[in-house]
Amino acid sequence: MASRRALRLAGGSPAIAAAHFQAEERPYDPALDPDGYLNLGTAENRLLWDLLEPRLTCARRLAAADIRYGLLYGTAALREAVAAFLTRTRGAPVAADDLVVVSGATAALDIAATALCDPGEAIIIPSPYYGAFDVDLAGRSEARLVAAPGRRGDQFRPGPQALDRAIGRAWRAGLKPRAVALASPSNPVGQVYGPDVLGEILRVAAAHGLDVIADEIYANSVFGPGSFTPMSALTGPMLPPGQVHTVWGFAKDFGLPGLKVGVLHTTDLAVRAAARELAYFAPVSTDTQALLCSLLADPAWTDDFLAAGRARLGDSYARVAGLLDKHQIGYLPAAAGFSVWIDLGPWLPGPGFEGESALWRRLWDEAHLNILPGAEFHSPEPGWFRVCHATDPAIVTEAIGRLAGLLQEQAS
Amino acid sequence: MASRRALRLAGGSPAIAAAHFQAEERPYDPALDPDGYLNLGTAENRLLWDLLEPRLTCARRLAAADIRYGLLYGTAALREAVAAFLTRTRGAPVAADDLVVVSGATAALDIAATALCDPGEAIIIPSPYYGAFDVDLAGRSEARLVAAPGRRGDQFRPGPQALDRAIGRAWRAGLKPRAVALASPSNPVGQVYGPDVLGEILRVAAAHGLDVIADEIYANSVFGPGSFTPMSALTGPMLPPGQVHTVWGFAKDFGLPGLKVGVLHTTDLAVRAAARELAYFAPVSTDTQALLCSLLADPAWTDDFLAAGRARLGDSYARVAGLLDKHQIGYLPAAAGFSVWIDLGPWLPGPGFEGESALWRRLWDEAHLNILPGAEFHSPEPGWFRVCHATDPAIVTEAIGRLAGLLQEQAS
Repeated sequence: MASRRALRLAGGSPAIAAAHFQAEERPYDPALDPDGYLNLGTAENRLLWDLLEPRLTCARRLAAADIRYGLLYGTAALREAVAAFLTRTRGAPVAADDLVVVSGATAALDIAATALCDPGEAIIIPSPYYGAFDVDLAGRSEARLVAAPGRRGDQFRPGPQALDRAIGRAWRAGLKPRAVALASPSNPVGQVYGPDVLGEILRVAAAHGLDVIADEIYANSVFGPGSFTPMSALTGPMLPPGQVHTVWGFAKDFGLPGLKVGVLHTTDLAVRAAARELAYFAPVSTDTQALLCSLLADPAWTDDFLAAGRARLGDSYARVAGLLDKHQIGYLPAAAGFSVWIDLGPWLPGPGFEGESALWRRLWDEAHLNILPGAEFHSPEPGWFRVCHATDPAIVTEAIGRLAGLLQEQAS
Repeated sequence: MASRRALRLAGGSPAIAAAHFQAEERPYDPALDPDGYLNLGTAENRLLWDLLEPRLTCARRLAAADIRYGLLYGTAALREAVAAFLTRTRGAPVAADDLVVVSGATAALDIAATALCDPGEAIIIPSPYYGAFDVDLAGRSEARLVAAPGRRGDQFRPGPQALDRAIGRAWRAGLKPRAVALASPSNPVGQVYGPDVLGEILRVAAAHGLDVIADEIYANSVFGPGSFTPMSALTGPMLPPGQVHTVWGFAKDFGLPGLKVGVLHTTDLAVRAAARELAYFAPVSTDTQALLCSLLADPAWTDDFLAAGRARLGDSYARVAGLLDKHQIGYLPAAAGFSVWIDLGPWLPGPGFEGESALWRRLWDEAHLNILPGAEFHSPEPGWFRVCHATDPAIVTEAIGRLAGLLQEQAS
């Protein structure tokens, strides 16, 4: 018989995952199934396989020691390789001992939330935010998420007033705020935050005694304009370095989402000690760790690969933006990530998030198109959808065409 | 700043893990470091690498789809392969849909405990038991473990009276018993339980309305006498099948502990639904899942490999038993697993578990020998140690020689 806790957990699956697997089961194929599903709902970079394939399918160098018990928070070899990689790409030193490698960014976020919050304490999150944060940060940790809604006029950028208001709301609801969490670069909007935006967040955190959880999983997926600023580079004068905890992983920048390798970087010794213990429940296969070591062991390949990835993302974004322009569908300019945040507000068949949901349902039922509605991202206003474009251009073209066709029909 | 929960967690690392890594850092080598550490503390089967190496180091067949997001409770391909494997080796049908594949048996046990128990509810465990159960079953789940001590006269086999008494003790301590957990075949003793012993456990569970968590991670590591009886084969008349939840993994039988792949089998729909959600926090790399599929895709190789493993384990056990006999060190007969449970009671330098700990300390400091004391396994009486023998015979011979030398010195 399941525990009460189990029954609660079983209700918590994110819609993102359900739509993903449903769409993948019957994919569009121009010849074989032209009415199949188009999945632009999943933030995967599918533009990199030709570059990865030779490195993943070749013979593996493994010794007996590689398949024995390893340190459960990551082998020394992988943590050292990742530390060197982050040091090089962030431009600030990262120590291998401050890294905890676990089975996915979800696990890393869960561990950060669990190590920082006691049950019922609050994490403040600028919205719109990556919908799976609800599970990642609060599903197991029992922390409570409190949204700090951005404003359309600011392109939904996080701002100090919204954070301050959310902190006040948390206290009034009887929840003690413990941390601010955000994705930087942002998801779903795909913005690159500079020192100005990030500095304001640190200032608010410092003023309220909060830690910061920075999900920087798109750090190397910036195609511009603007360049990535690591949150940890701004600590020191603003907030003690030990109060910023960064999550990174191989899913996005390396196009390896199935490998489920997440990394938590923290210099707070107590948080690190707890994270190492929690890693016991979410270790990564040493086989996969050895593979990732072999990739990172070649910095020239790594840098070329990431540069190619950024260039392909930039092309992909330009392509989808052109299609949206052509069909006069509004969107916010993106500079990073795999998605564009489009404004279907003018076409909602009814008011509010119910209207948004009705449009989503029509897109799914009639156009067989999977794009996620803003409600999944706690959007501050209805009508926004996230379109993931880092896939076969033919699919993106077909998808935007179907979308435009349905909107036209809706308007007439 | 770490949460109160984090500070509690950081105190919980099992001594098993600490001694393992310390011993591995300076290993014995007859030529290079004859005074190095001998690690017979870790239940790894190190006798299989020559059989595994060709399958692990060859080129891998991976397609783009293999590195994309997979179902987080295990790819359909791996769950189907494991279901077929378990069906074949258990002799009873296992459905792929009833399997949840996660990053290690630790995660599988944690998920079972979390899905069955609300915080503060009790799991009854026959002792001596695998010490890491304390972390696996209770570290994150906040279930409470209550030992049901076996008796020396019964070779510490679990019995209904001990279970009944432990259930009574739990109630008196204000803890509601929810489940019985045990390793079958047993660890540390290495016993193979027949339908008589297992049936009694099911009977007690049924009488008290408890579920059963059966850790069958050594199911294919039985060298005899006796053959493995899956707990699930006895359900039906004794206890509804949905109340038995089985854990298995690739660490022991396949000699792949570093890969951290655990499997939970449950036919209770609510427990399964919760386990699938919890798997979100502990998924396995699809790269490693593809590797394991390639192993299981060849049943002839798999069966030969497992048979060779059992034969080598039997030889290894016979060898260590011969050495113990030669030095007149007592032990309980084992029929499975990688360890033998030896009785150093006659040589304790002082009374009780303090005496045991003092002897352990001398073995570590003076003989540079890592074998784990019974206290780590909640042994019902002091003086027992677990010796893991599934490694290079030269190391085992050197270790038992050092042990006998120190005991002789102690006795004189």
